[in-house]
Amino acid sequence: MPDTLPLGSTIGIIGGGQLGRMLSVAASRLGFRCHIFEPGAEPPAGHVADKVTTAVYEDEAALRMFGESVDVITYEFENIPTAALDVLQDSAPIFPGREALRVSQDRLTEKTFLQGLGLKTAPFADVTDAASLAAAITDIGTPSILKTRRFGYDGKGQVRINAHSDAAQALTDIQAAPAILEGFVDFSDEVSVIAARGMDGAVAAFDPGENVHSDGILRTTTVPARLSPSQRSDAVLIAAKVLNALEYVGVLGVELFVTPHGLIVNEIAPRVHNSGHWTQNGCTVDQFEQHIRAVAGWPLGDGTRHADVVMENLIGDDMNRVPDLAKTTDTALHLYGKAENKPGRKMGHVNHIKRV
Amino acid sequence: MPDTLPLGSTIGIIGGGQLGRMLSVAASRLGFRCHIFEPGAEPPAGHVADKVTTAVYEDEAALRMFGESVDVITYEFENIPTAALDVLQDSAPIFPGREALRVSQDRLTEKTFLQGLGLKTAPFADVTDAASLAAAITDIGTPSILKTRRFGYDGKGQVRINAHSDAAQALTDIQAAPAILEGFVDFSDEVSVIAARGMDGAVAAFDPGENVHSDGILRTTTVPARLSPSQRSDAVLIAAKVLNALEYVGVLGVELFVTPHGLIVNEIAPRVHNSGHWTQNGCTVDQFEQHIRAVAGWPLGDGTRHADVVMENLIGDDMNRVPDLAKTTDTALHLYGKAENKPGRKMGHVNHIKRV
Repeated sequence: MPDTLPLGSTIGIIGGGQLGRMLSVAASRLGFRCHIFEPGAEPPAGHVADKVTTAVYEDEAALRMFGESVDVITYEFENIPTAALDVLQDSAPIFPGREALRVSQDRLTEKTFLQGLGLKTAPFADVTDAASLAAAITDIGTPSILKTRRFGYDGKGQVRINAHSDAAQALTDIQAAPAILEGFVDFSDEVSVIAARGMDGAVAAFDPGENVHSDGILRTTTVPARLSPSQRSDAVLIAAKVLNALEYVGVLGVELFVTPHGLIVNEIAPRVHNSGHWTQNGCTVDQFEQHIRAVAGWPLGDGTRHADVVMENLIGDDMNRVPDLAKTTDTALHLYGKAENKPGRKMGHVNHIKRV
Repeated sequence: MPDTLPLGSTIGIIGGGQLGRMLSVAASRLGFRCHIFEPGAEPPAGHVADKVTTAVYEDEAALRMFGESVDVITYEFENIPTAALDVLQDSAPIFPGREALRVSQDRLTEKTFLQGLGLKTAPFADVTDAASLAAAITDIGTPSILKTRRFGYDGKGQVRINAHSDAAQALTDIQAAPAILEGFVDFSDEVSVIAARGMDGAVAAFDPGENVHSDGILRTTTVPARLSPSQRSDAVLIAAKVLNALEYVGVLGVELFVTPHGLIVNEIAPRVHNSGHWTQNGCTVDQFEQHIRAVAGWPLGDGTRHADVVMENLIGDDMNRVPDLAKTTDTALHLYGKAENKPGRKMGHVNHIKRV
């Protein structure tokens, strides 16, 4: 067992959104302080953090000062520029490690990595130009989706292709960025597994949750997911395989499609994950504390599910429902304190709890 | 129903210890920011607060700046000097209100108030000098306890009197401060009720907890308490009577002695209370969120108990047990991030959970 981070240490968190905010709160429960690095002004995580550095990822001096003020670095956000990581890693260890970031920052690398582990993914092809896109459409068929290899989230950087004739416009839409063409998967359900690996190599998974997306944004996660016992165990084994292959330290989200031919990995996220927010009211140790435990070298905690939960994101105008939700029993609100609301923006979530 | 505090508002919290820390975390869940006012350096609450003002209660300018930067003021600590409150109340409303502070800051006023409500207290007498102490000892008998009227906590400002001959030394020990002599109560158990009253006058109580003290410091609180149904309802009715009499807004702790002749009120605390920490892992809405809801004009939340809990304070060397506790299932750690540990200091607590 490696050394644990001494109580009172400071954890650096890259990214100051709601995930960083809830990580900081979890860290406080274990006696740690957090220092947030975030380019945007007034980050929600800053309301509950000991320190905030507001600087761009290109500001080497700021990165260095941040790195030197913390004892370990983690992140809420996987698209951290490589050059920034190069600067940071001189100052403090980064968990999850660089390999997890390298793999998950690029859809082509990620899918190739997953297939290399013997896991199933959607059919995909590398797209670099009009010719390779045309070949990919022929190979994979339509409908299919052109996705930029990097910097996509919440459905951004994605264009649907229904016919060869959509190809030129699609390339223009993604500004001819390096991409993959991904085939559609005929799935009955989307589920995700939130799993963790400690510095001692121990692995623990929360119960799989069943996800409903709309417009590319997660709307609800329900636990337990409607999975057979063998699907449930497959889901957890897939997550464990990924964690071990990456010698991962921290919490990882794995999104899966449920198909008649088994579970297909949609994508992995090397961080706490929106579909794991139900754990805040369904487990003694939630995904945020589990992540902090892992990156602090603590033993993983007790993530046994003790309640059925429906997690519902509060997006844009959903916030108008807060006064009613505040009056509802067995309902836990988690608001993010974001200054500005707009359509499609995640402003909070609510866990509807059913005691089991 | 009064206006609720708009999302994103700032709550001022007087006192930066562990109670302020956990209030600030709860406020963040509801989308509020907190600003801590605390005379001591490096307050634990500051690690999870948006702002911290470090200043003494005599610093009028600092109080005024603090008051003007917040939308509502609450506190983790009832012994706030009256002059400081006079300054603060010009800037923002203070909840719980001045009357709750006036009553609870002075043991004589508090006991007189409680008896005025028809509630039972230990026998007591006003002590101002040697003559009144002698009369009080004759009246109340021995053993009894001389307690300063103001600024006592965790057993401080208290001297036991076993005989008339102890009187002179006892007065010296309390530096001849205004005091009361309190008779011993022959009780079987100590319990407490953590109850809340909203701005709309609604009252809600958490299940009573059973407390074990040692050396004047709370060691454990166990829920459910061993109380008969009628004792349980008496306990809650006593809390409600106090809340309504004070037109209280916020969470109140009421400590009670269980005797063959009914429940006797030991003391009231106009704030979240150590004996309510079990609610963090036993209820959907814990005492901290309940307090924030009340002072923000929100409806009170669902405080139904969904688990049996033993809350155990981690005091001084108890912190050596943290590595083992971190490995234990159904165990939730809550550490306070205090820089310095010393004997008798509350460094954290742990909730041992038994699902029901």
